[in-house]
Amino acid sequence: MNQSERLDRTFAALTDPSRRAILARLEREEQGATVSDLAKPLPIKMPAVMKHLDVLDGAGLITRTKEGRVVTVRLAPRPMREAMAWLRRYERFWTASLDRLTALAEARETELRKAGK
Amino acid sequence: MNQSERLDRTFAALTDPSRRAILARLEREEQGATVSDLAKPLPIKMPAVMKHLDVLDGAGLITRTKEGRVVTVRLAPRPMREAMAWLRRYERFWTASLDRLTALAEARETELRKAGK
Repeated sequence: MNQSERLDRTFAALTDPSRRAILARLEREEQGATVSDLAKPLPIKMPAVMKHLDVLDGAGLITRTKEGRVVTVRLAPRPMREAMAWLRRYERFWTASLDRLTALAEARETELRKAGK
Repeated sequence: MNQSERLDRTFAALTDPSRRAILARLEREEQGATVSDLAKPLPIKMPAVMKHLDVLDGAGLITRTKEGRVVTVRLAPRPMREAMAWLRRYERFWTASLDRLTALAEARETELRKAGK
């Protein structure tokens, strides 16, 4: 898989609130979580949860290990790093917009102060 | 649209190499680019380009303005900011992994130095 295909998969995996909720939960569970723990707070049925886990696994965003009947799911956030690196190049745009807003607010304040006294 | 729906749309819009190429191109074009300029380097036909622009527009990632027959496309990166904020919480994971790697490399170097002399 090349970088572009990896980005396709990562962004596609993030395109669902249940999958994002699973990742957010795993972010807080240092030791991982079982499939049934992950399923509990979600408003979807177990087969749907399993499908979401397959998508996350396919994108390399989780690992699953089985001990007896219990499957433990852990976060593998590495692909998100690449996704974030891709997004980062746009950062200068919103930083620039914020700078403009700040300058505007300051100019307005100076004006108001002059008008007041 | 709530935040979760906005994230769905943004990530979905980023799930395609042509759409990412269009955004990357617009990132370099301060004054925006015409639709035909954007289409030129892409390995897809004009109707496909138009569909991609619709998706990007629907996600709020571009703006289109028409003057006569010429449509100028500009980047509207704001939704990417939210997507990046969502990804950022995972940053501590890869930072932690890098720290572990650095520590490992340093420990190995110390060991090799001891063994050498």
